[in-house]
Amino acid sequence: MHTTSHEQDTLLARRQRVLSPSYRLFYDEPMHAVRSEGVWVYDADGRRYLDAYNNVPVVGHCHPYVVEQVAKQAAVLNTHTRYLTDKPVELAERLLGTMPPELGSVIFMNSGSEANDLAVRISRLVTGNSGIIVTDCAYHGTTDLLSGLSPVTGLPTGPGVFTVSLPPKMADAGEFRILVRGALDKMREAGIRPAALLVDTIFGSDGVVSGPVCFLKGAVDDVRREGGLFIADEVQPGFGRTGAGMWGFARHGVVPDIVTMGKPMGNGYPVASAVLRRELADIFGRHQRYFNTFGGSTVGCAAALAVLDVIENEDLVVHAAETGAYLKDGLQNLCKRHDVFTDLRGTGLFLGVQTPSGDVAARIVNALRRAGVLIGAAGRGNAALKIRPPLSVSRSDVDYLIGTIDDVLNKEIER
Amino acid sequence: MHTTSHEQDTLLARRQRVLSPSYRLFYDEPMHAVRSEGVWVYDADGRRYLDAYNNVPVVGHCHPYVVEQVAKQAAVLNTHTRYLTDKPVELAERLLGTMPPELGSVIFMNSGSEANDLAVRISRLVTGNSGIIVTDCAYHGTTDLLSGLSPVTGLPTGPGVFTVSLPPKMADAGEFRILVRGALDKMREAGIRPAALLVDTIFGSDGVVSGPVCFLKGAVDDVRREGGLFIADEVQPGFGRTGAGMWGFARHGVVPDIVTMGKPMGNGYPVASAVLRRELADIFGRHQRYFNTFGGSTVGCAAALAVLDVIENEDLVVHAAETGAYLKDGLQNLCKRHDVFTDLRGTGLFLGVQTPSGDVAARIVNALRRAGVLIGAAGRGNAALKIRPPLSVSRSDVDYLIGTIDDVLNKEIER
Repeated sequence: MHTTSHEQDTLLARRQRVLSPSYRLFYDEPMHAVRSEGVWVYDADGRRYLDAYNNVPVVGHCHPYVVEQVAKQAAVLNTHTRYLTDKPVELAERLLGTMPPELGSVIFMNSGSEANDLAVRISRLVTGNSGIIVTDCAYHGTTDLLSGLSPVTGLPTGPGVFTVSLPPKMADAGEFRILVRGALDKMREAGIRPAALLVDTIFGSDGVVSGPVCFLKGAVDDVRREGGLFIADEVQPGFGRTGAGMWGFARHGVVPDIVTMGKPMGNGYPVASAVLRRELADIFGRHQRYFNTFGGSTVGCAAALAVLDVIENEDLVVHAAETGAYLKDGLQNLCKRHDVFTDLRGTGLFLGVQTPSGDVAARIVNALRRAGVLIGAAGRGNAALKIRPPLSVSRSDVDYLIGTIDDVLNKEIER
Repeated sequence: MHTTSHEQDTLLARRQRVLSPSYRLFYDEPMHAVRSEGVWVYDADGRRYLDAYNNVPVVGHCHPYVVEQVAKQAAVLNTHTRYLTDKPVELAERLLGTMPPELGSVIFMNSGSEANDLAVRISRLVTGNSGIIVTDCAYHGTTDLLSGLSPVTGLPTGPGVFTVSLPPKMADAGEFRILVRGALDKMREAGIRPAALLVDTIFGSDGVVSGPVCFLKGAVDDVRREGGLFIADEVQPGFGRTGAGMWGFARHGVVPDIVTMGKPMGNGYPVASAVLRRELADIFGRHQRYFNTFGGSTVGCAAALAVLDVIENEDLVVHAAETGAYLKDGLQNLCKRHDVFTDLRGTGLFLGVQTPSGDVAARIVNALRRAGVLIGAAGRGNAALKIRPPLSVSRSDVDYLIGTIDDVLNKEIER
């Protein structure tokens, strides 16, 4: 049994004294992280955990090349976009090089929240409409505006926000279109026109709903027909995670009007972006300036450039596809042998396993933590397991992950 | 005359092609920054500029100790607050140690915008009221909510937002109270109750209005009497800049309900915070969770701890007071000899010089850039010069700054 050390109790008490009670820790027994490397996180007792949850360290925790590039740039110049500097221009060019040509204009921020907040604001400005469609388990960020667009938090939806209830398993690509059409109908009845459909291109907070490929296309067409935009929230699926390309929208055969990205962009360095169709950026730029002090800073851009280098040099998109398929096979086998695994979803290294309830999922997540594996829960009632290791995860790491899950289900969950 | 190099033209053209037109560059001739150190920034031609504008590199550009601490932590562990880690606890304790004991609860973010956005949201949640008072040249950040609380941007104020028009020179401490009382009266007529008074503790975007000490106190009392909170925006004045203490509110003999901070906190690393009275944090925490992926990350906290170390070890608050007084004396002498300097305001190393118009201020700012000094303009019509060097600026740097301003006024502005 795990012994909570005196030091950990003391740290926990200090934390509870000075941090706001709005903070929450993972796990029944909080994990005191002191070091990490690649796919491994080490606790204060020197015990190691396979990180199968965090998508921020996308190329692996503390990747030496990213650390080196950040340190090098931080020692030379760390300034903002009101001076002319090379890095934000290089990064914007590199990002645009990964996207369809319609997406031609880049804005930098510090977080996916800042990116989504601005994307929604721009969609309302350029369309002149106010309606936004999100899913009813969506999470799009922490700002005041986005708290009204993130029903999974339990906060009330904001004015003009309409939700669609995503089925965890879609029968065909037409199902989502029908749901969105329903939201558009309700909007029309309320005298509101759509500014945007804002969705993850893999529905992470909805329980990793990947659905049939191209299921977004019809819905996007309908929203556009009524004057709205499609904002692709790539904060979770972006940077190769789906294995189908750099961006989740590639799976859907549709080019977004605005793409937002954040979490993995700097492998932990706070950097984010919104990429827009050029004509939208032109309208926005005619009406408003936008300056973000740290957004597009030379060091943040160096971090993001280093991440792009590693993804390319280590061929991580292909690796995510291949290792993701191997992981999915392994999970599929577990589904056959364990009744608590009722469904398997996702693509690449972004996978979700349905369990009967949030209680079962929490028991599995906590048992895995004790057994040395970090995963999380998401979706309706937090009943789905969210499995999302760094893209650099190896086949032997996957074997360890599958073996540990199997063990835990046998010994602790299904006894 | 400055010769714009071919490389710079090319970089500028590339930038305009890929970055959104909402971006703006400083100066008629953009400055291509490639390196910086202490108070100096170097352009692509190897020319150096005294940075008398940027408050982000508060302990000096590329301070070796901050760079080292960031690099060290980035190589060991960069993770979030849902695991137990030392750094955010240490940082929260250190921050609270600089504040009155009523302020007892810390939340971390990435930017002053995220901090102000949450502060306003919390003020509305805990008071149950919606009214917010800001100045009519206020700037509080980039989010959708804050764009409605930042009239200096030219964007319309948001619902429930009331503005007061700050006189650049306040006759006595009672003047601001009368203005705020007027806003509270208008609010009452509109059937709205106050959630918060949100102001800089030195009014930066209003043209560096420092006013008589304690001028906020009466206004804060009145707002509190009607159920509202006082949010001190310390994003610009915080971290010793006023020379009167770590925080600008110290000059006003009042303890805020929420303190927000950002820009200088990590000397360029994106890190920010909201510090709350414990009872407010308790109410917020009972109603809502708040998770910010990068906020309170181990590396961001290491950067902020390093900045606090340097401020302490180099005695920068006292230095800001002393060197600030020396700089103010120098500017006072210039005011006597140059008619275009019509007023001098500010305290510590946060100073504002009034000029007759935005056109004159822009001419001075551009002439100084050509002469090797970086400053900015702010306030109504951008007619005030904003002078805000890193706190590590020396007396000989100040002599260079004053000498260069004198020269530029003699040779280029008042010929």
